[in-house]
Amino acid sequence: MRKFLVTLLTFACLGFVKASETGFLMPVPQSVSWGQGFLQIDSSFAIVVEGVDSGRSSHAAARILARLSKETGIRFSPPPAKPNAGVLRIAVRNPAPLTPVLGIDESYSIAVNGQGAMLTAGNFFGVVHGLETFLQLLRLDSSGFNIPAVTIKDEPRFPWRGLLVDVCRHWIPMDVLKRTIDGMAAVKLNVLHWHLSEDQGFRIESKRFPRLHSFGSDGLYYSQDQAREVVAYAAERGIRVIPEFDMPGHTTSWFVGYPELASSPGPYSIQRTWGVFDPAMDPTREEVYEFLDGFIEEMTQIFPDPFFHIGGDEVNGKQWDSSAAVAKFKHNNSLKDNHDIQVYFNKRVSGILKRHKRRMVGWDEILHPELPNNIVVQSWRGHKALAATVQQGSEGILSWGYYLDHMRPASYHYGIDPLAGDGLELAVDQRSQVLGGEACMWAEFVTEENIDSRIWPRTAAIAERLWSPSDVADVEDMYRRLAHVSKRLAWLGLTHIASYNKMLERLTGYREINTLKTLSDVLEPVKFYERPHTRKYTQQTPLNRLVDATRPESNAAREFAELVESYLMNPTLEGRAKALRLRLIQWRENDKKLQPILSTSPLLAEVIPLSRKLTRVSQIGLDALNAMEEGSPLGDRRKGLAKALSEEQTPAAELLLMIIPPIQTLLNAAP
Amino acid sequence: MRKFLVTLLTFACLGFVKASETGFLMPVPQSVSWGQGFLQIDSSFAIVVEGVDSGRSSHAAARILARLSKETGIRFSPPPAKPNAGVLRIAVRNPAPLTPVLGIDESYSIAVNGQGAMLTAGNFFGVVHGLETFLQLLRLDSSGFNIPAVTIKDEPRFPWRGLLVDVCRHWIPMDVLKRTIDGMAAVKLNVLHWHLSEDQGFRIESKRFPRLHSFGSDGLYYSQDQAREVVAYAAERGIRVIPEFDMPGHTTSWFVGYPELASSPGPYSIQRTWGVFDPAMDPTREEVYEFLDGFIEEMTQIFPDPFFHIGGDEVNGKQWDSSAAVAKFKHNNSLKDNHDIQVYFNKRVSGILKRHKRRMVGWDEILHPELPNNIVVQSWRGHKALAATVQQGSEGILSWGYYLDHMRPASYHYGIDPLAGDGLELAVDQRSQVLGGEACMWAEFVTEENIDSRIWPRTAAIAERLWSPSDVADVEDMYRRLAHVSKRLAWLGLTHIASYNKMLERLTGYREINTLKTLSDVLEPVKFYERPHTRKYTQQTPLNRLVDATRPESNAAREFAELVESYLMNPTLEGRAKALRLRLIQWRENDKKLQPILSTSPLLAEVIPLSRKLTRVSQIGLDALNAMEEGSPLGDRRKGLAKALSEEQTPAAELLLMIIPPIQTLLNAAP
Repeated sequence: MRKFLVTLLTFACLGFVKASETGFLMPVPQSVSWGQGFLQIDSSFAIVVEGVDSGRSSHAAARILARLSKETGIRFSPPPAKPNAGVLRIAVRNPAPLTPVLGIDESYSIAVNGQGAMLTAGNFFGVVHGLETFLQLLRLDSSGFNIPAVTIKDEPRFPWRGLLVDVCRHWIPMDVLKRTIDGMAAVKLNVLHWHLSEDQGFRIESKRFPRLHSFGSDGLYYSQDQAREVVAYAAERGIRVIPEFDMPGHTTSWFVGYPELASSPGPYSIQRTWGVFDPAMDPTREEVYEFLDGFIEEMTQIFPDPFFHIGGDEVNGKQWDSSAAVAKFKHNNSLKDNHDIQVYFNKRVSGILKRHKRRMVGWDEILHPELPNNIVVQSWRGHKALAATVQQGSEGILSWGYYLDHMRPASYHYGIDPLAGDGLELAVDQRSQVLGGEACMWAEFVTEENIDSRIWPRTAAIAERLWSPSDVADVEDMYRRLAHVSKRLAWLGLTHIASYNKMLERLTGYREINTLKTLSDVLEPVKFYERPHTRKYTQQTPLNRLVDATRPESNAAREFAELVESYLMNPTLEGRAKALRLRLIQWRENDKKLQPILSTSPLLAEVIPLSRKLTRVSQIGLDALNAMEEGSPLGDRRKGLAKALSEEQTPAAELLLMIIPPIQTLLNAAP
Repeated sequence: MRKFLVTLLTFACLGFVKASETGFLMPVPQSVSWGQGFLQIDSSFAIVVEGVDSGRSSHAAARILARLSKETGIRFSPPPAKPNAGVLRIAVRNPAPLTPVLGIDESYSIAVNGQGAMLTAGNFFGVVHGLETFLQLLRLDSSGFNIPAVTIKDEPRFPWRGLLVDVCRHWIPMDVLKRTIDGMAAVKLNVLHWHLSEDQGFRIESKRFPRLHSFGSDGLYYSQDQAREVVAYAAERGIRVIPEFDMPGHTTSWFVGYPELASSPGPYSIQRTWGVFDPAMDPTREEVYEFLDGFIEEMTQIFPDPFFHIGGDEVNGKQWDSSAAVAKFKHNNSLKDNHDIQVYFNKRVSGILKRHKRRMVGWDEILHPELPNNIVVQSWRGHKALAATVQQGSEGILSWGYYLDHMRPASYHYGIDPLAGDGLELAVDQRSQVLGGEACMWAEFVTEENIDSRIWPRTAAIAERLWSPSDVADVEDMYRRLAHVSKRLAWLGLTHIASYNKMLERLTGYREINTLKTLSDVLEPVKFYERPHTRKYTQQTPLNRLVDATRPESNAAREFAELVESYLMNPTLEGRAKALRLRLIQWRENDKKLQPILSTSPLLAEVIPLSRKLTRVSQIGLDALNAMEEGSPLGDRRKGLAKALSEEQTPAAELLLMIIPPIQTLLNAAP
């Protein structure tokens, strides 16, 4: 009987929430204290909103209730709710502005016991965060759906926690943008950095200068109403929207309709390839500043946030070098080089922004002593550049280390702290000048179809870094929670899982995807900017190959690496060698089943060698494992195996086989 | 070398489209003639619209192009399209009304060769069908994405091809309704029968009688703007919208706000359970007809279709029996029974409808010689009732045999022909009085979450029955195409596959679903109206159990039955016994892996015996197979095995194990 009970308890522990310290909360709150018992979630559950700002809070509560209903399948009783049933009460102390602003109080606290739950917040924006935490607490265990008893006090570590979405290299429609905002809110990010203009597209309607969008976008732009809709949608979820209009470079799409803004006469057409291009605004003409004054004024009517991003990165100066007008202007104004010209330009734009009550945000390159120090510098170059910003008395945010298009694992991003890094030594009173950071989703290789799988779930790890205490840094625990959050994000509507499967289905011509998935699950796209080197890409190139579907981080390979580690720590422990062997055999045998599928589609022709690579690499793993298990040294074979394995590291079809490093480890350990 | 070529060809045949007569077209067109070669689909592909009604056709073409882009991952060149590239030209001969009407020309023809494609249609509604066929032709083979050369001439067999959606028993939101319409258009259905009022809910806004929706809907109703949006959305896809307001019975929700319409004084509240209820409109009061006159007039402003459905089914007469006013009214008007009363009521409503230029549609019960014969009778009772309608000179549609909530297999529905059935003997000139049929999605056990999996893909088989020639009746070929259509419908946005997986994920508490799916894939919900007998259901009962997730038809069990058949036809053929054994062992062993998951959730407690049942039944199958393979007679064991198997047929958790019949077959064949 005793044994039976233990078994039951074991099963209970396998349930929905592992009652560890962090549960499945992400980001981890500032303080969590688990209690005894739980609040039952059944059809009588309701949310009651009290205090100020109850209209907005009620809307937010209704959204959470709808998600709770979706995730549990429970239809909550029609209003009015029964007052005697388990209830979440929301109390708000202070009114908040319509849209959130930098540094606003985002704190909240939650107390749950068997009778009910209470969410208290300084203002509406704390409510939004608290409701997301409440939903994350939901679990299914032997008592049914419930919220465990807990006391949480929470507030963010950094006030600026953003995600940049590039909607220019590839068009991102409204519904995708909205669900991205939903995902951001779920992990408590609070800035949508909307990268709206680029060489490859001008993506917002301008009524004052309509040729911007009508000539510069292929018809793929947001109307002003839609942009306002995004701002309002984000604000309801506690998220600021900061538009970026990159200038004076990255501006080809402006010049398609208004070539007179450029430093060379044109004509211009939308840029269809990727890289840094020559066109730049003409810094010498007053008409350019007048245009910008009018345009920025128009945009401030849409974007209420006090910050305005002017980009300012990657001006190669070639148009300026070849322009007689610019040469003359340089001479007349004693500007010694292109950097000086850009400083001049930025100062002029800074004046315009000031007139329109906006603070300038720009990339590292804008930093200069002659600019007012109320600018915010976004560092793509790293902690050293961030330090320079702070030393100059300005505020900075970090994006270096958070580039999602680099296809790095969540653990990498998780390890980057805005306040800790090479070359960053700040006095205590300077630390508050580091406002936070932003993940960046550049869209050269991203479409509406795969953007979710590039942003999620990795961005949740970055969100935690920016919200939670710096000592929340257990990578294993992060991955445990990330796997759960990833599924919850799918319930919220993010398509990072569904779209992966559909893209594989397309590749197989609507056939079964399991064997292709077995391969794809241990692959990752090449890193950094290696992709454009392997073939010529344009904006029209279909992103429908395996590399576009395969996820940035292979969980299967990571878990395999953990299995290898644990095996090597104790090779004789029951089951570990067997588990390794099973995995390796499954991978080795996969090619036989996959080749008939690969042969049917030209899209999969490039995958044929990759599938064979998996077989060869798995065989090397099995050879090493056999040597370990049988205690029979590899001897002369070692060198050949090591060489073969090393050669397999070369990418194929722009994909890397991620089980190679752990197999290398296994091989090194083999006798 | 010769062998190599053969292998390649074999692979090619396994591709996207099996170049059989029907390809993957569904419904099968009236005539298909496959040619040589194909039209390449790449980024230069475009659709050019010519002729009348080009605005609407262009919109329809843009939608198809967007789906083509989604399904292929190809971004088509920004307009204007290169005129020299492969193009689909659309030519329309005649203008069409804004909304389709019964009997309108729906014909189209398609001609595709290597240079381009041509779609010709009598009017816009033919274009809509032709574009869906064009998209169904898309395939991925060794030449990439392409449309095979083909000539198609097509038109429907029946002019009335509908789907009833009950939005009353459970609320169905706008987005679900819209994607249902998308799915209908994909399989060329042309009538959305919108069941808008019931005992359990009144689902449309009435400005004239606002207490209808405000008291009768729990706030879950469509605004008039939304209803107009649905009508317009459907019309753009060639679909008529016919509203149903069931009367004089099935009307409890009307009486919550307007008890004076009822035959007993009330008060009334929304009915929360399922069944036939007593409340019925008061046939004796003029105010009731004035109310209906006003209400129907209001609704005709929203629904332009010349037909208006008044239900008329299942009046149990109890309120009338117990009303002194009704007794007196009966006497005064020489009405001998409740049926006479309903005829009186229907005649009055018929007069109202005539005044508002609408033709009456109702269920079998409305048929009566005293009603004008321009009514359309929808038969839920069968061919005999349909015959009675025709004999009386009226037109009829068949819904008997097409009830999706009965959870029958696609093959069953596919076998029901409106023009062939027991008791239906029609003269040639009477056949046109049978207008077609309607699939019915009654929503007692349907929510927005699982409605797609109840409607799709089975409704595609019904759609084919109503569109294609009657001799298109090869069940095996239907299933081959249905499997493909099902996947294509998922690309269109239907959630019948995705939602199944998510509901399983919920049941397991966000854990891996494969073992639960192995079980669920061989289950089916109990049939007909058996569910309500097993436990008490109300409108608030969560539909989040396995029976709510499991699909109406088990493909795995059907395929297993086919495998058993083919094995028994030739037991010695290589691989068949082995395939059977592998499946049976996988099923037998599943319980071991599944039990730990089942133990964690109270939602899965009822599944524990089902999982064990799968093990036992599979073992019986293995016993039979062993006897066959080893030629060792079962002898004394046969009786016990047969008895055990027979006992396993009892449903558990409202679910049936569908591999029992084929295992019965195997057991019977064993020596």
